[in-house]
Amino acid sequence: DSNLKIFSLNSDPALSKKIGEILGVDLGKCSVTRFSDGEIQINIEESIRGCEVYIIQSISSPVNEHLMELLIMVDALKRASAKTINLVIPYYGYARQDRKARAREPITAKLIANLLETAGSTRVIALDLHAPQIQGFFDIPIDHLMGVPILGEYFLNKQLDDIVIVSPDHGGVTRARKLADRLKAPIAIIDKRRPRPNVVEVMNIVGNIEGKTAILIDDIIDTAGTITLAANALVENGAKEVYACCTHPVLSGPAIERIQNSKIKELVVTDSITLPEEKRIDKLVELSVAPLISEAIKRIHEKQSVDELVQ
Amino acid sequence: DSNLKIFSLNSDPALSKKIGEILGVDLGKCSVTRFSDGEIQINIEESIRGCEVYIIQSISSPVNEHLMELLIMVDALKRASAKTINLVIPYYGYARQDRKARAREPITAKLIANLLETAGSTRVIALDLHAPQIQGFFDIPIDHLMGVPILGEYFLNKQLDDIVIVSPDHGGVTRARKLADRLKAPIAIIDKRRPRPNVVEVMNIVGNIEGKTAILIDDIIDTAGTITLAANALVENGAKEVYACCTHPVLSGPAIERIQNSKIKELVVTDSITLPEEKRIDKLVELSVAPLISEAIKRIHEKQSVDELVQ
Ligand SMILES: Nc1ncnc2c1ncn2[C@@H]1O[C@H](COP(=O)(O)O)[C@@H](O)[C@H]1O
Ligand SMILES: Nc1ncnc2c1ncn2[C@@H]1O[C@H](COP(=O)(O)O)[C@@H](O)[C@H]1O
Repeated sequence: DSNLKIFSLNSDPALSKKIGEILGVDLGKCSVTRFSDGEIQINIEESIRGCEVYIIQSISSPVNEHLMELLIMVDALKRASAKTINLVIPYYGYARQDRKARAREPITAKLIANLLETAGSTRVIALDLHAPQIQGFFDIPIDHLMGVPILGEYFLNKQLDDIVIVSPDHGGVTRARKLADRLKAPIAIIDKRRPRPNVVEVMNIVGNIEGKTAILIDDIIDTAGTITLAANALVENGAKEVYACCTHPVLSGPAIERIQNSKIKELVVTDSITLPEEKRIDKLVELSVAPLISEAIKRIHEKQSVDELVQ
Repeated sequence: DSNLKIFSLNSDPALSKKIGEILGVDLGKCSVTRFSDGEIQINIEESIRGCEVYIIQSISSPVNEHLMELLIMVDALKRASAKTINLVIPYYGYARQDRKARAREPITAKLIANLLETAGSTRVIALDLHAPQIQGFFDIPIDHLMGVPILGEYFLNKQLDDIVIVSPDHGGVTRARKLADRLKAPIAIIDKRRPRPNVVEVMNIVGNIEGKTAILIDDIIDTAGTITLAANALVENGAKEVYACCTHPVLSGPAIERIQNSKIKELVVTDSITLPEEKRIDKLVELSVAPLISEAIKRIHEKQSVDELVQ
């Protein structure tokens, strides 16, 4: 279908290549480089007039660079008369700044939605947004794909016995429930609380984990503080072994060291964020979202329902 | 006037401090830092409800970082109920991408104007935009300050004899004319042309420079290729000595080395872009735009005319 064009910018070239292969589409020719002063220079090297264009780009680290590449690409495509400009954003950065938690905070997740629309996007395809409410930040159609089935399938195939799915905090219980449904397992919750201000947190575990194989699940693992403390608390409280999984491996700062030194046996992630070589430690298992994203692009392009893929 | 608030982000703290001192206004308390994953975190540490807020921030290198700081700050101020949000942008980055010179190019200078408006800006105060047409990219008021008077005053005070103002290319002749008017001097033009494709450029000088003190002027000096070639051509063709000046010292890549090795006696710039220590070479003279910007802020805030300051 010569009307379908898929472009990869700089965040996820390997994922984009896989998507192109699955769909049998050559990736669009474009170069995204820098002028001497650091300004982004984009050259789209083939006509896209009248085409349905998909751009694959995560708002991952270096987050402001990747975001600006995306905005400038959308501007260029709009001016080059693309028929539709569909953003495939495997990792939506700034998603944790989704509300005013304190006075005078920005709501950067909403700002970014506005910027993407202003630039000329006509549709967004996102994966496991930190808060599903971010869908409502857009006035253009957004399809919100789920990572849980991919993680679930991996653990199903592993055929682990006597498992319990654990949410590392209160905010993640719904996500843990979804994985538990797929694995027909019970759930538990790490119930952190601070008895008094300036007193160390107490890690209380709600649910039965004794002798079980625990699978911790989160959407984002960033500095890995929460997840490694949770893993160690589970082992101390009698869990047999601990797996951890997430959709988005941000893994910034001390994350890798913490994971290495933790009781986590295996960390299962997706390729929504491209990891540099030094973060691909032995404990880490990477699953690809390429089949899921390819299926979504195919169905959207063929105007079929994506109901089973979305939340 | 407690209704006037001036905030500095990370691009130009020293310039902002000067502006605060000239206006007798303490800079607003805010911190602009990074989360562990590189996302921008902004904390505005005083109430700005109902205030007229001025943000001082250049879109200078690291250009995408500085731009995003500005956009997120505008978002935070808007949500914190600022009465007006006035952007003081001494250097407007991406200004050279102001038209489609080739097929399928972005017009990033326009994109940025749209982004700044979308975020919630109510006014822009800019200095020597690469193309004055960029004023028309905005639908909010924009005041376009001139750097030439500052450069002109410096050279007037130097009392150089027998000077000629030289434009390093055709595009800069209007600017050279403006400086020449102030210094009551004639102009000359470096008339580069390529006789045939893939043949080295010929540097022809239009105008009389023999035995004179030449002052080259440009708006931006980036890699300094144009200006240093021009300076050397002037000396080879009989100029007594060569000064160079510009408003915006981008000075990227090989710029400093080229200037050091060139026939340029002195390079006069403004502090519209904050230079790191290693670029502050002996040949470089920095003039401050703080008095000009302070005067503009004062007049705009007091609802007086800025006619004399703008182009
Ligand atoms: N990039 C980031 N890294 C760490 N914390 C963040 C980041 N962005 C926002 N936050 C903070 O994370 C909190 C929201 O996270 P959550 O409660 O998990 O939704 C807010 O207090 C934010 O200030
Ligand atoms: N940051 C940059 N560094 C160098 N060249 C640029 C930059 N941005 C745009 N350009 C190019 O500069 C040319 C415009 O410069 P000018 O002719 O001086 O207005 C266009 O061909 C642009 O592609």
